[in-house]
Amino acid sequence: MNPSIETIAEHASFGGVQGFYRHESSTIGLPMRFGLYMPPNSALTNAASADLRIAAVVFLAGLTCNEETFAIKAGAQAKAAELGLALIMPDTSPRGANVVGEADAWDFGLAASFYLDATQEPWRAHYQMASYVASELISVVAQRWPIDVNRVGIMGHSMGGHGALTLALKHPAQFKSVSAIAPICAPTQCPWGKKALSGYLGDDAASQNSWAQHDASALMQACARGAPFPSGILIDQGLADKFLLDQLNPDHFDAACEAVGQPLRLRRQVGYDHGYYFVASVIDDHLAHHHARLAQLV
Amino acid sequence: MNPSIETIAEHASFGGVQGFYRHESSTIGLPMRFGLYMPPNSALTNAASADLRIAAVVFLAGLTCNEETFAIKAGAQAKAAELGLALIMPDTSPRGANVVGEADAWDFGLAASFYLDATQEPWRAHYQMASYVASELISVVAQRWPIDVNRVGIMGHSMGGHGALTLALKHPAQFKSVSAIAPICAPTQCPWGKKALSGYLGDDAASQNSWAQHDASALMQACARGAPFPSGILIDQGLADKFLLDQLNPDHFDAACEAVGQPLRLRRQVGYDHGYYFVASVIDDHLAHHHARLAQLV
Repeated sequence: MNPSIETIAEHASFGGVQGFYRHESSTIGLPMRFGLYMPPNSALTNAASADLRIAAVVFLAGLTCNEETFAIKAGAQAKAAELGLALIMPDTSPRGANVVGEADAWDFGLAASFYLDATQEPWRAHYQMASYVASELISVVAQRWPIDVNRVGIMGHSMGGHGALTLALKHPAQFKSVSAIAPICAPTQCPWGKKALSGYLGDDAASQNSWAQHDASALMQACARGAPFPSGILIDQGLADKFLLDQLNPDHFDAACEAVGQPLRLRRQVGYDHGYYFVASVIDDHLAHHHARLAQLV
Repeated sequence: MNPSIETIAEHASFGGVQGFYRHESSTIGLPMRFGLYMPPNSALTNAASADLRIAAVVFLAGLTCNEETFAIKAGAQAKAAELGLALIMPDTSPRGANVVGEADAWDFGLAASFYLDATQEPWRAHYQMASYVASELISVVAQRWPIDVNRVGIMGHSMGGHGALTLALKHPAQFKSVSAIAPICAPTQCPWGKKALSGYLGDDAASQNSWAQHDASALMQACARGAPFPSGILIDQGLADKFLLDQLNPDHFDAACEAVGQPLRLRRQVGYDHGYYFVASVIDDHLAHHHARLAQLV
Protein backbone atom coordinates (compact mmCIF):
# COMPACT_ATOMS: atom_id res chain seq x y z
CA MET A 1 0.00 0.00 0.00
CA ASN A 2 1.42 3.35 -0.99
CA PRO A 3 -1.45 5.80 -0.74
CA SER A 4 -1.02 8.89 -2.81
CA ILE A 5 -0.13 12.03 -0.91
CA GLU A 6 -1.02 15.33 -2.51
CA THR A 7 1.26 18.28 -1.89
CA ILE A 8 -0.70 21.40 -0.96
CA ALA A 9 2.32 23.65 -0.37
CA GLU A 10 5.98 23.45 0.52
CA HIS A 11 8.12 26.23 1.96
CA ALA A 12 11.84 26.30 2.65
CA SER A 13 12.30 26.82 6.38
CA PHE A 14 15.59 26.91 8.33
CA GLY A 15 17.26 24.82 5.65
CA GLY A 16 14.51 22.20 5.71
CA VAL A 17 11.02 22.04 4.29
CA GLN A 18 7.71 22.98 5.93
CA GLY A 19 5.09 21.19 3.86
CA PHE A 20 1.35 20.71 3.91
CA TYR A 21 -0.20 17.61 2.41
CA ARG A 22 -3.49 15.80 1.86
CA HIS A 23 -4.15 12.05 1.68
CA GLU A 24 -7.14 9.71 1.66
CA SER A 25 -7.36 8.32 5.18
CA SER A 26 -8.72 4.78 5.39
CA THR A 27 -9.27 5.23 9.13
CA ILE A 28 -11.22 8.46 8.86
CA GLY A 29 -12.87 7.62 5.55
CA LEU A 30 -12.19 11.13 4.25
CA PRO A 31 -9.26 13.16 2.95
CA MET A 32 -7.07 14.36 5.81
CA ARG A 33 -4.52 17.17 5.77
CA PHE A 34 -1.31 17.28 7.74
CA GLY A 35 1.72 19.50 8.13
CA LEU A 36 5.24 18.06 8.10
CA TYR A 37 8.53 19.73 8.87
CA MET A 38 11.57 17.88 7.57
CA PRO A 39 14.87 19.25 8.89
CA PRO A 40 17.84 19.87 6.60
CA ASN A 41 19.69 16.70 7.52
CA SER A 42 16.79 14.68 6.13
CA ALA A 43 17.87 15.62 2.61
CA LEU A 44 20.96 13.53 3.21
CA THR A 45 19.06 10.46 4.33
CA ASN A 46 17.41 7.78 2.28
CA ALA A 47 14.10 6.16 3.01
CA ALA A 48 15.52 2.83 1.88
CA SER A 49 18.11 2.81 4.64
CA ALA A 50 16.67 2.37 8.11
CA ASP A 51 19.90 3.56 9.69
CA LEU A 52 19.48 7.00 8.19
CA ARG A 53 15.86 7.51 9.10
CA ILE A 54 15.22 10.35 11.53
CA ALA A 55 13.24 10.70 14.73
CA ALA A 56 9.91 12.52 14.65
CA VAL A 57 7.57 14.26 17.06
CA VAL A 58 3.82 14.34 16.46
CA PHE A 59 2.22 17.62 17.57
CA LEU A 60 -1.51 17.63 18.33
CA ALA A 61 -3.12 21.07 18.28
CA GLY A 62 -5.97 22.40 20.37
CA LEU A 63 -9.57 23.49 19.92
CA THR A 64 -10.25 25.66 16.83
CA CYS A 65 -6.82 24.91 15.33
CA ASN A 66 -5.83 23.03 12.19
CA GLU A 67 -2.74 21.46 10.65
CA GLU A 68 -1.22 24.91 9.98
CA THR A 69 -1.55 26.50 13.41
CA PHE A 70 1.53 25.05 15.08
CA ALA A 71 3.63 25.44 11.92
CA ILE A 72 2.78 29.15 11.69
CA LYS A 73 2.74 30.20 15.33
CA ALA A 74 5.06 28.04 17.44
CA GLY A 75 8.43 28.86 15.88
CA ALA A 76 9.41 25.20 16.28
CA GLN A 77 11.26 24.74 13.00
CA ALA A 78 14.49 26.41 14.14
CA LYS A 79 15.05 23.94 16.98
CA ALA A 80 13.79 20.97 14.95
CA ALA A 81 16.32 21.87 12.25
CA GLU A 82 19.09 22.09 14.83
CA LEU A 83 18.18 18.74 16.43
CA GLY A 84 17.37 16.93 13.18
CA LEU A 85 13.82 16.15 14.29
CA ALA A 86 10.86 15.80 11.95
CA LEU A 87 7.56 17.38 13.09
CA ILE A 88 4.24 15.77 12.11
CA MET A 89 1.18 18.00 12.51
CA PRO A 90 -2.21 16.41 11.88
CA ASP A 91 -5.45 18.35 11.62
CA THR A 92 -7.64 18.51 14.75
CA SER A 93 -10.67 16.64 13.37
CA PRO A 94 -12.08 15.18 10.18
CA ARG A 95 -13.25 17.78 7.65
CA GLY A 96 -16.14 17.08 5.37
CA ALA A 97 -17.92 14.51 7.53
CA ASN A 98 -21.01 16.69 7.22
CA VAL A 99 -22.35 15.65 10.59
CA VAL A 100 -25.38 17.78 11.38
CA GLY A 101 -24.35 20.42 13.90
CA GLU A 102 -20.61 19.68 13.77
CA ALA A 103 -19.80 23.36 13.22
CA ASP A 104 -22.24 24.71 15.79
CA ALA A 105 -19.80 24.81 18.72
CA TRP A 106 -16.11 25.65 18.91
CA ASP A 107 -15.50 23.01 21.58
CA PHE A 108 -17.21 20.00 19.96
CA GLY A 109 -17.24 18.59 16.44
CA LEU A 110 -15.12 20.31 13.81
CA ALA A 111 -11.61 21.12 15.08
CA ALA A 112 -12.60 19.54 18.41
CA SER A 113 -12.19 15.79 17.96
CA PHE A 114 -10.51 15.27 21.33
CA TYR A 115 -8.34 12.68 19.55
CA LEU A 116 -10.55 9.72 20.45
CA ASP A 117 -12.52 7.12 18.47
CA ALA A 118 -16.19 8.07 18.69
CA THR A 119 -18.64 5.25 19.42
CA GLN A 120 -21.83 7.30 19.18
CA GLU A 121 -23.90 8.14 16.13
CA PRO A 122 -23.56 10.27 14.10
CA TRP A 123 -19.87 10.75 14.98
CA ARG A 124 -18.51 7.21 14.81
CA ALA A 125 -18.38 6.97 11.01
CA HIS A 126 -15.55 9.49 10.67
CA TYR A 127 -14.46 10.81 14.08
CA GLN A 128 -11.77 8.16 14.63
CA MET A 129 -8.84 10.42 15.38
CA ALA A 130 -7.20 8.19 18.01
CA SER A 131 -6.76 5.35 15.54
CA TYR A 132 -5.79 7.80 12.81
CA VAL A 133 -2.98 9.35 14.86
CA ALA A 134 -1.78 6.15 16.54
CA SER A 135 -2.07 3.68 13.65
CA GLU A 136 -2.27 5.36 10.24
CA LEU A 137 -0.64 8.80 10.10
CA ILE A 138 2.92 7.88 10.95
CA SER A 139 3.08 4.95 8.53
CA VAL A 140 1.66 7.13 5.76
CA VAL A 141 4.35 9.73 6.38
CA ALA A 142 7.08 7.07 6.62
CA GLN A 143 6.20 5.72 3.19
CA ARG A 144 7.30 8.96 1.56
CA TRP A 145 9.76 10.51 4.01
CA PRO A 146 12.67 8.94 5.92
CA ILE A 147 10.97 8.83 9.34
CA ASP A 148 12.06 6.18 11.82
CA VAL A 149 8.75 4.79 13.04
CA ASN A 150 10.53 3.32 16.06
CA ARG A 151 11.63 6.77 17.24
CA VAL A 152 8.45 8.81 17.41
CA GLY A 153 7.40 11.05 20.29
CA ILE A 154 4.11 12.87 20.81
CA MET A 155 3.19 16.22 22.27
CA GLY A 156 0.29 18.63 22.16
CA HIS A 157 -1.32 21.82 23.37
CA SER A 158 -4.57 22.08 25.34
CA MET A 159 -6.98 19.54 23.77
CA GLY A 160 -3.92 18.27 21.91
CA GLY A 161 -2.08 17.90 25.21
CA HIS A 162 -4.91 15.64 26.34
CA GLY A 163 -4.54 13.75 23.07
CA ALA A 164 -0.78 13.38 23.45
CA LEU A 165 -0.92 12.19 27.06
CA THR A 166 -3.77 9.71 26.50
CA LEU A 167 -2.41 8.28 23.24
CA ALA A 168 1.07 7.92 24.74
CA LEU A 169 -0.31 6.12 27.77
CA LYS A 170 -2.41 3.78 25.61
CA HIS A 171 0.35 3.17 23.03
CA PRO A 172 3.70 3.39 24.84
CA ALA A 173 5.29 1.09 22.26
CA GLN A 174 4.29 3.50 19.51
CA PHE A 175 5.18 6.78 21.24
CA LYS A 176 8.55 6.65 22.98
CA SER A 177 8.45 10.14 24.49
CA VAL A 178 5.65 12.47 25.55
CA SER A 179 5.14 16.05 26.66
CA ALA A 180 2.34 18.61 26.76
CA ILE A 181 1.71 22.34 27.00
CA ALA A 182 -1.33 23.48 29.00
CA PRO A 183 -3.01 20.07 28.51
CA ILE A 184 -6.52 19.11 29.51
CA CYS A 185 -5.31 16.64 32.14
CA ALA A 186 -8.59 15.22 33.42
CA PRO A 187 -11.39 15.52 30.84
CA THR A 188 -13.75 13.42 32.96
CA GLN A 189 -13.62 16.26 35.50
CA CYS A 190 -13.99 19.42 33.36
CA PRO A 191 -16.74 21.02 31.23
CA TRP A 192 -14.92 20.69 27.87
CA GLY A 193 -14.15 17.04 28.58
CA LYS A 194 -17.58 16.06 29.86
CA LYS A 195 -19.21 17.58 26.80
CA ALA A 196 -16.85 15.82 24.41
CA LEU A 197 -16.83 12.45 26.14
CA SER A 198 -20.60 12.31 26.46
CA GLY A 199 -21.08 13.39 22.86
CA TYR A 200 -18.54 11.06 21.30
CA LEU A 201 -18.76 8.11 23.72
CA GLY A 202 -22.17 8.39 25.33
CA ASP A 203 -23.05 8.15 28.99
CA ASP A 204 -20.10 6.98 31.04
CA ALA A 205 -21.93 4.31 33.04
CA ALA A 206 -23.54 2.80 29.96
CA SER A 207 -20.39 2.81 27.84
CA GLN A 208 -18.27 -0.23 27.07
CA ASN A 209 -15.57 2.32 26.31
CA SER A 210 -15.41 4.11 29.62
CA TRP A 211 -14.54 7.76 29.93
CA ALA A 212 -11.59 6.89 32.17
CA GLN A 213 -9.85 5.33 29.17
CA HIS A 214 -9.69 8.82 27.67
CA ASP A 215 -8.54 10.68 30.76
CA ALA A 216 -4.77 11.04 31.20
CA SER A 217 -4.98 11.30 34.97
CA ALA A 218 -7.16 8.18 35.25
CA LEU A 219 -4.96 6.27 32.80
CA MET A 220 -1.85 7.18 34.76
CA GLN A 221 -3.49 6.28 38.07
CA ALA A 222 -4.27 2.84 36.59
CA CYS A 223 -0.63 2.09 35.70
CA ALA A 224 -0.33 -0.80 38.15
CA ARG A 225 3.02 -1.90 36.79
CA GLY A 226 4.78 1.38 37.53
CA ALA A 227 5.96 4.36 35.52
CA PRO A 228 5.14 3.96 31.83
CA PHE A 229 7.71 6.62 30.85
CA PRO A 230 10.65 6.15 33.21
CA SER A 231 12.66 8.82 31.42
CA GLY A 232 10.08 11.38 32.43
CA ILE A 233 7.19 13.48 31.13
CA LEU A 234 7.42 17.25 30.61
CA ILE A 235 4.40 19.53 31.06
CA ASP A 236 4.40 23.33 30.94
CA GLN A 237 1.44 25.23 32.36
CA GLY A 238 1.03 29.01 32.39
CA LEU A 239 -0.32 30.46 35.62
CA ALA A 240 -2.13 33.32 33.83
CA ASP A 241 -4.03 30.77 31.72
CA LYS A 242 -7.73 31.64 31.97
CA PHE A 243 -8.66 27.97 31.49
CA LEU A 244 -6.39 26.63 34.23
CA LEU A 245 -8.86 26.47 37.08
CA ASP A 246 -11.92 25.13 35.29
CA GLN A 247 -10.60 23.02 32.44
CA LEU A 248 -6.99 21.86 32.75
CA ASN A 249 -6.41 20.21 36.18
CA PRO A 250 -2.65 19.61 36.02
CA ASP A 251 -2.73 18.80 39.74
CA HIS A 252 -4.80 15.68 39.02
CA PHE A 253 -2.16 14.41 36.62
CA ASP A 254 0.63 15.39 38.99
CA ALA A 255 -1.02 13.36 41.80
CA ALA A 256 -1.50 10.36 39.52
CA CYS A 257 2.16 10.44 38.47
CA GLU A 258 3.19 10.69 42.10
CA ALA A 259 1.03 7.68 42.96
CA VAL A 260 2.63 5.40 40.38
CA GLY A 261 6.17 6.75 40.56
CA GLN A 262 6.07 8.38 37.12
CA PRO A 263 8.72 11.12 36.89
CA LEU A 264 6.96 14.34 35.87
CA ARG A 265 8.49 17.75 35.33
CA LEU A 266 5.43 20.01 35.71
CA ARG A 267 6.62 23.58 35.23
CA ARG A 268 4.18 26.21 36.47
CA GLN A 269 5.12 29.34 34.51
CA VAL A 270 4.29 32.68 36.09
CA GLY A 271 2.55 35.16 33.80
CA TYR A 272 1.95 32.98 30.75
CA ASP A 273 -1.50 32.56 29.20
CA HIS A 274 -3.07 29.76 27.11
CA GLY A 275 -1.99 30.94 23.66
CA TYR A 276 0.79 30.33 21.19
CA TYR A 277 3.03 33.06 22.61
CA PHE A 278 3.34 30.62 25.52
CA VAL A 279 3.77 27.60 23.26
CA ALA A 280 6.55 29.41 21.39
CA SER A 281 8.26 30.39 24.65
CA VAL A 282 8.68 26.76 25.77
CA ILE A 283 8.73 24.78 22.51
CA ASP A 284 12.52 24.48 22.34
CA ASP A 285 12.57 22.79 25.75
CA HIS A 286 9.92 20.31 24.59
CA LEU A 287 11.78 19.40 21.43
CA ALA A 288 14.97 18.97 23.50
CA HIS A 289 13.02 16.70 25.86
CA HIS A 290 11.90 14.46 23.00
CA HIS A 291 15.29 14.53 21.33
CA ALA A 292 17.04 13.46 24.52
CA ARG A 293 14.85 10.37 24.78
CA LEU A 294 14.62 9.48 21.09
CA ALA A 295 18.39 9.84 20.58
CA GLN A 296 18.90 7.07 23.16
CA LEU A 297 17.01 4.64 20.94
CA VAL A 298 19.34 4.71 17.93
CA MET B 1 1.58 65.60 25.52
CA ASN B 2 0.95 62.12 26.81
CA PRO B 3 -1.65 60.62 24.52
CA SER B 4 -3.59 57.77 26.01
CA ILE B 5 -2.66 54.33 24.79
CA GLU B 6 -5.28 51.63 25.05
CA THR B 7 -4.10 48.09 25.72
CA ILE B 8 -5.80 45.60 23.40
CA ALA B 9 -3.95 42.51 24.65
CA GLU B 10 -0.72 41.54 26.38
CA HIS B 11 0.91 38.11 26.35
CA ALA B 12 3.97 36.90 28.23
CA SER B 13 6.55 35.84 25.64
CA PHE B 14 10.10 34.61 26.28
CA GLY B 15 10.16 36.38 29.61
CA GLY B 16 9.02 39.66 28.08
CA VAL B 17 5.67 41.00 26.92
CA GLN B 18 4.14 40.88 23.44
CA GLY B 19 1.46 43.56 23.52
CA PHE B 20 -1.02 45.10 21.12
CA TYR B 21 -2.18 48.68 21.60
CA ARG B 22 -4.34 51.42 20.11
CA HIS B 23 -3.84 55.18 20.23
CA GLU B 24 -5.28 58.27 18.58
CA SER B 25 -2.77 59.29 15.93
CA SER B 26 -2.57 63.01 15.28
CA THR B 27 -0.66 62.36 12.05
CA ILE B 28 -3.16 59.87 10.65
CA GLY B 29 -6.21 61.50 12.18
CA LEU B 30 -7.58 58.11 13.19
CA PRO B 31 -6.93 55.47 15.86
CA MET B 32 -3.88 53.38 14.97
CA ARG B 33 -2.93 49.98 16.33
CA PHE B 34 0.58 48.72 16.89
CA GLY B 35 2.32 45.70 18.31
CA LEU B 36 5.21 46.03 20.76
CA TYR B 37 7.54 43.41 22.11
CA MET B 38 9.39 44.43 25.25
CA PRO B 39 12.18 42.04 26.23
CA PRO B 40 12.62 40.81 29.81
CA ASN B 41 15.44 43.20 30.67
CA SER B 42 13.06 46.11 30.09
CA ALA B 43 11.27 45.27 33.33
CA LEU B 44 14.44 46.30 35.14
CA THR B 45 14.70 49.64 33.41
CA ASN B 46 13.02 52.89 34.19
CA ALA B 47 11.60 55.31 31.70
CA ALA B 48 12.85 58.17 33.85
CA SER B 49 16.46 57.15 33.41
CA ALA B 50 17.81 57.65 29.92
CA ASP B 51 20.77 55.42 30.67
CA LEU B 52 18.51 52.43 31.11
CA ARG B 53 16.41 52.89 28.02
CA ILE B 54 16.72 50.10 25.46
CA ALA B 55 17.28 49.99 21.73
CA ALA B 56 14.35 49.23 19.44
CA VAL B 57 13.74 48.00 15.92
CA VAL B 58 10.68 49.08 13.95
CA PHE B 59 9.33 46.31 11.71
CA LEU B 60 7.18 47.30 8.73
CA ALA B 61 5.01 44.50 7.36
CA GLY B 62 3.96 43.83 3.78
CA LEU B 63 0.80 43.90 1.70
CA THR B 64 -2.32 42.36 3.34
CA CYS B 65 -0.63 42.25 6.76
CA ASN B 66 -1.42 44.08 9.97
CA GLU B 67 0.24 44.84 13.31
CA GLU B 68 -0.12 41.21 14.42
CA THR B 69 1.40 39.40 11.44
CA PHE B 70 5.06 39.71 12.32
CA ALA B 71 4.40 39.07 16.01
CA ILE B 72 2.57 35.82 15.24
CA LYS B 73 4.58 34.43 12.35
CA ALA B 74 8.21 35.58 12.49
CA GLY B 75 9.36 34.00 15.75
CA ALA B 76 11.36 37.14 16.48
CA GLN B 77 10.68 37.40 20.20
CA ALA B 78 13.22 34.75 21.23
CA LYS B 79 16.17 36.64 19.73
CA ALA B 80 14.82 40.04 20.78
CA ALA B 81 14.61 38.75 24.35
CA GLU B 82 18.18 37.46 24.17
CA LEU B 83 19.54 40.72 22.75
CA GLY B 84 17.40 43.03 24.87
CA LEU B 85 15.82 44.69 21.84
CA ALA B 86 12.32 46.13 21.73
CA LEU B 87 10.28 45.47 18.56
CA ILE B 88 7.76 48.07 17.35
CA MET B 89 5.21 46.80 14.83
CA PRO B 90 2.86 49.37 13.28
CA ASP B 91 -0.16 48.50 11.17
CA THR B 92 0.27 48.63 7.39
CA SER B 93 -2.21 51.45 6.68
CA PRO B 94 -4.85 53.59 8.35
CA ARG B 95 -8.07 51.73 9.22
CA GLY B 96 -11.39 53.47 9.14
CA ALA B 97 -10.50 56.21 6.67
CA ASN B 98 -13.52 55.06 4.66
CA VAL B 99 -11.99 56.09 1.37
CA VAL B 100 -14.24 54.85 -1.43
CA GLY B 101 -12.65 51.77 -2.95
CA GLU B 102 -9.88 51.41 -0.37
CA ALA B 103 -10.72 47.73 0.17
CA ASP B 104 -11.17 46.87 -3.50
CA ALA B 105 -7.59 45.75 -4.16
CA TRP B 106 -5.11 43.86 -2.00
CA ASP B 107 -2.18 45.90 -3.35
CA PHE B 108 -3.55 49.43 -2.89
CA GLY B 109 -5.45 51.17 -0.10
CA LEU B 110 -6.13 49.20 3.08
CA ALA B 111 -3.07 47.28 4.29
CA ALA B 112 -1.17 48.71 1.31
CA SER B 113 -0.09 52.20 2.34
CA PHE B 114 3.42 51.86 0.92
CA TYR B 115 4.56 53.88 3.97
CA LEU B 116 4.43 57.21 2.21
CA ASP B 117 2.52 60.46 2.70
CA ALA B 118 -0.20 60.62 0.06
CA THR B 119 -0.64 63.92 -1.75
CA GLN B 120 -3.66 62.94 -3.86
CA GLU B 121 -7.34 63.07 -2.99
CA PRO B 122 -9.02 61.17 -1.47
CA TRP B 123 -5.98 59.55 0.18
CA ARG B 124 -4.12 62.53 1.59
CA ALA B 125 -6.40 63.12 4.57
CA HIS B 126 -5.34 59.93 6.39
CA TYR B 127 -2.75 58.00 4.35
CA GLN B 128 0.27 59.70 5.97
CA MET B 129 2.18 56.63 7.03
CA ALA B 130 5.68 57.97 6.35
CA SER B 131 5.21 60.81 8.81
CA TYR B 132 3.43 58.50 11.24
CA VAL B 133 6.30 55.98 11.34
CA ALA B 134 9.14 58.50 11.19
CA SER B 135 7.79 61.22 13.44
CA GLU B 136 4.97 60.07 15.72
CA LEU B 137 5.03 56.35 16.49
CA ILE B 138 8.37 56.09 18.25
CA SER B 139 7.77 59.08 20.48
CA VAL B 140 4.34 57.74 21.43
CA VAL B 141 5.89 54.41 22.40
CA ALA B 142 8.74 56.13 24.28
CA GLN B 143 6.30 58.05 26.44
CA ARG B 144 5.08 54.83 28.04
CA TRP B 145 7.95 52.37 27.61
CA PRO B 146 11.70 52.80 28.20
CA ILE B 147 12.74 53.03 24.55
CA ASP B 148 15.89 54.95 23.66
CA VAL B 149 14.72 57.12 20.77
CA ASN B 150 18.34 57.64 19.80
CA ARG B 151 18.91 53.93 19.22
CA VAL B 152 16.17 52.88 16.82
CA GLY B 153 16.63 50.74 13.72
CA ILE B 154 14.11 49.92 11.02
CA MET B 155 13.45 46.85 8.93
CA GLY B 156 10.62 45.40 6.90
CA HIS B 157 9.34 42.72 4.58
CA SER B 158 8.26 43.21 0.95
CA MET B 159 6.27 46.50 0.88
CA GLY B 160 7.59 46.99 4.40
CA GLY B 161 11.13 46.46 3.14
CA HIS B 162 10.51 49.30 0.71
CA GLY B 163 9.21 51.35 3.64
CA ALA B 164 12.22 50.56 5.80
CA LEU B 165 14.80 51.37 3.12
CA THR B 166 13.15 54.60 1.99
CA LEU B 167 12.42 55.91 5.49
CA ALA B 168 15.94 55.08 6.64
CA LEU B 169 17.44 56.87 3.64
CA LYS B 170 15.22 59.92 4.19
CA HIS B 171 15.70 59.99 7.97
CA PRO B 172 19.17 58.61 8.75
CA ALA B 173 19.30 60.62 11.98
CA GLN B 174 16.12 58.92 13.16
CA PHE B 175 16.92 55.36 12.05
CA LYS B 176 20.46 54.31 12.90
CA SER B 177 20.35 50.86 11.31
CA VAL B 178 18.39 49.33 8.45
CA SER B 179 17.71 45.94 6.91
CA ALA B 180 15.04 44.32 4.75
CA ILE B 181 13.68 40.93 3.73
CA ALA B 182 12.50 40.53 0.13
CA PRO B 183 11.97 44.30 -0.20
CA ILE B 184 10.42 46.15 -3.13
CA CYS B 185 13.68 47.84 -4.05
CA ALA B 186 12.59 50.01 -6.98
CA PRO B 187 8.87 50.84 -6.86
CA THR B 188 9.17 53.29 -9.75
CA GLN B 189 10.09 50.26 -11.90
CA CYS B 190 7.52 47.59 -10.88
CA PRO B 191 3.74 47.12 -11.22
CA TRP B 192 2.97 47.26 -7.47
CA GLY B 193 5.01 50.41 -7.09
CA LYS B 194 3.70 52.21 -10.16
CA LYS B 195 0.13 51.57 -9.08
CA ALA B 196 0.77 52.82 -5.56
CA LEU B 197 2.88 55.84 -6.48
CA SER B 198 0.45 57.03 -9.14
CA GLY B 199 -2.52 56.52 -6.84
CA TYR B 200 -1.05 58.18 -3.77
CA LEU B 201 1.20 60.78 -5.43
CA GLY B 202 -0.27 61.33 -8.87
CA ASP B 203 1.56 61.41 -12.16
CA ASP B 204 5.32 61.47 -11.69
CA ALA B 205 6.08 64.32 -14.07
CA ALA B 206 3.35 66.53 -12.63
CA SER B 207 4.21 65.84 -9.00
CA GLN B 208 6.10 68.21 -6.72
CA ASN B 209 6.79 65.10 -4.68
CA SER B 210 8.54 62.98 -7.28
CA TRP B 211 8.30 59.22 -7.33
CA ALA B 212 12.07 58.95 -7.03
CA GLN B 213 11.83 60.27 -3.48
CA HIS B 214 9.96 57.05 -2.62
CA ASP B 215 12.23 54.61 -4.42
CA ALA B 216 15.08 53.11 -2.37
CA SER B 217 17.30 52.53 -5.38
CA ALA B 218 16.84 56.08 -6.66
CA LEU B 219 17.35 57.54 -3.17
CA MET B 220 20.55 55.55 -2.75
CA GLN B 221 21.77 56.52 -6.19
CA ALA B 222 21.28 60.17 -5.21
CA CYS B 223 23.49 59.95 -2.10
CA ALA B 224 26.11 62.32 -3.42
CA ARG B 225 27.93 62.55 -0.10
CA GLY B 226 28.70 58.84 0.10
CA ALA B 227 27.37 55.88 2.02
CA PRO B 228 24.54 56.90 4.34
CA PHE B 229 24.95 53.72 6.45
CA PRO B 230 28.71 53.06 6.60
CA SER B 231 28.18 50.13 8.97
CA GLY B 232 26.27 48.33 6.25
CA ILE B 233 22.78 47.32 5.13
CA LEU B 234 21.52 43.72 5.26
CA ILE B 235 19.02 42.36 2.72
CA ASP B 236 17.84 38.77 2.38
CA GLN B 237 16.11 37.68 -0.82
CA GLY B 238 14.75 34.20 -1.52
CA LEU B 239 15.44 32.86 -4.99
CA ALA B 240 12.19 30.87 -5.12
CA ASP B 241 10.24 34.08 -4.47
CA LYS B 242 7.53 34.31 -7.14
CA PHE B 243 7.61 38.12 -6.97
CA LEU B 244 11.37 38.43 -7.42
CA LEU B 245 11.52 38.99 -11.17
CA ASP B 246 8.57 41.35 -11.63
CA GLN B 247 8.30 43.29 -8.39
CA LEU B 248 11.38 43.30 -6.18
CA ASN B 249 14.48 44.35 -8.22
CA PRO B 250 17.21 43.83 -5.61
CA ASP B 251 19.79 44.22 -8.36
CA HIS B 252 18.76 47.86 -8.80
CA PHE B 253 19.45 48.55 -5.15
CA ASP B 254 22.67 46.56 -5.26
CA ALA B 255 23.90 48.64 -8.20
CA ALA B 256 22.95 51.90 -6.48
CA CYS B 257 24.84 50.86 -3.33
CA GLU B 258 27.84 49.94 -5.44
CA ALA B 259 27.73 53.34 -7.15
CA VAL B 260 27.84 55.33 -3.90
CA GLY B 261 30.08 52.99 -1.91
CA GLN B 262 27.32 51.85 0.46
CA PRO B 263 28.27 48.49 2.03
CA LEU B 264 25.44 46.04 1.31
CA ARG B 265 25.18 42.42 2.32
CA LEU B 266 22.61 41.12 -0.18
CA ARG B 267 22.09 37.43 0.55
CA ARG B 268 20.42 35.50 -2.25
CA GLN B 269 18.91 32.47 -0.52
CA VAL B 270 18.36 29.37 -2.62
CA GLY B 271 14.94 27.75 -2.30
CA TYR B 272 13.18 30.34 -0.13
CA ASP B 273 9.85 31.91 -1.13
CA HIS B 274 8.22 35.25 -0.26
CA GLY B 275 6.42 34.17 2.90
CA TYR B 276 6.95 34.23 6.63
CA TYR B 277 8.66 30.84 6.70
CA PHE B 278 11.48 32.75 4.99
CA VAL B 279 11.20 35.74 7.30
CA ALA B 280 11.42 33.41 10.31
CA SER B 281 14.45 31.63 8.85
CA VAL B 282 16.53 34.83 8.67
CA ILE B 283 15.04 37.06 11.39
CA ASP B 284 17.69 36.27 13.99
CA ASP B 285 20.41 37.49 11.64
CA HIS B 286 18.51 40.73 11.07
CA LEU B 287 18.05 41.41 14.75
CA ALA B 288 21.75 40.67 15.30
CA HIS B 289 22.58 43.13 12.50
CA HIS B 290 20.58 45.90 14.19
CA HIS B 291 21.87 45.04 17.65
CA ALA B 292 25.48 45.19 16.48
CA ARG B 293 25.00 48.73 15.21
CA LEU B 294 22.70 50.05 17.95
CA ALA B 295 24.93 48.67 20.71
CA GLN B 296 27.77 50.87 19.42
CA LEU B 297 25.70 53.97 20.14
CA VAL B 298 25.39 53.58 23.91
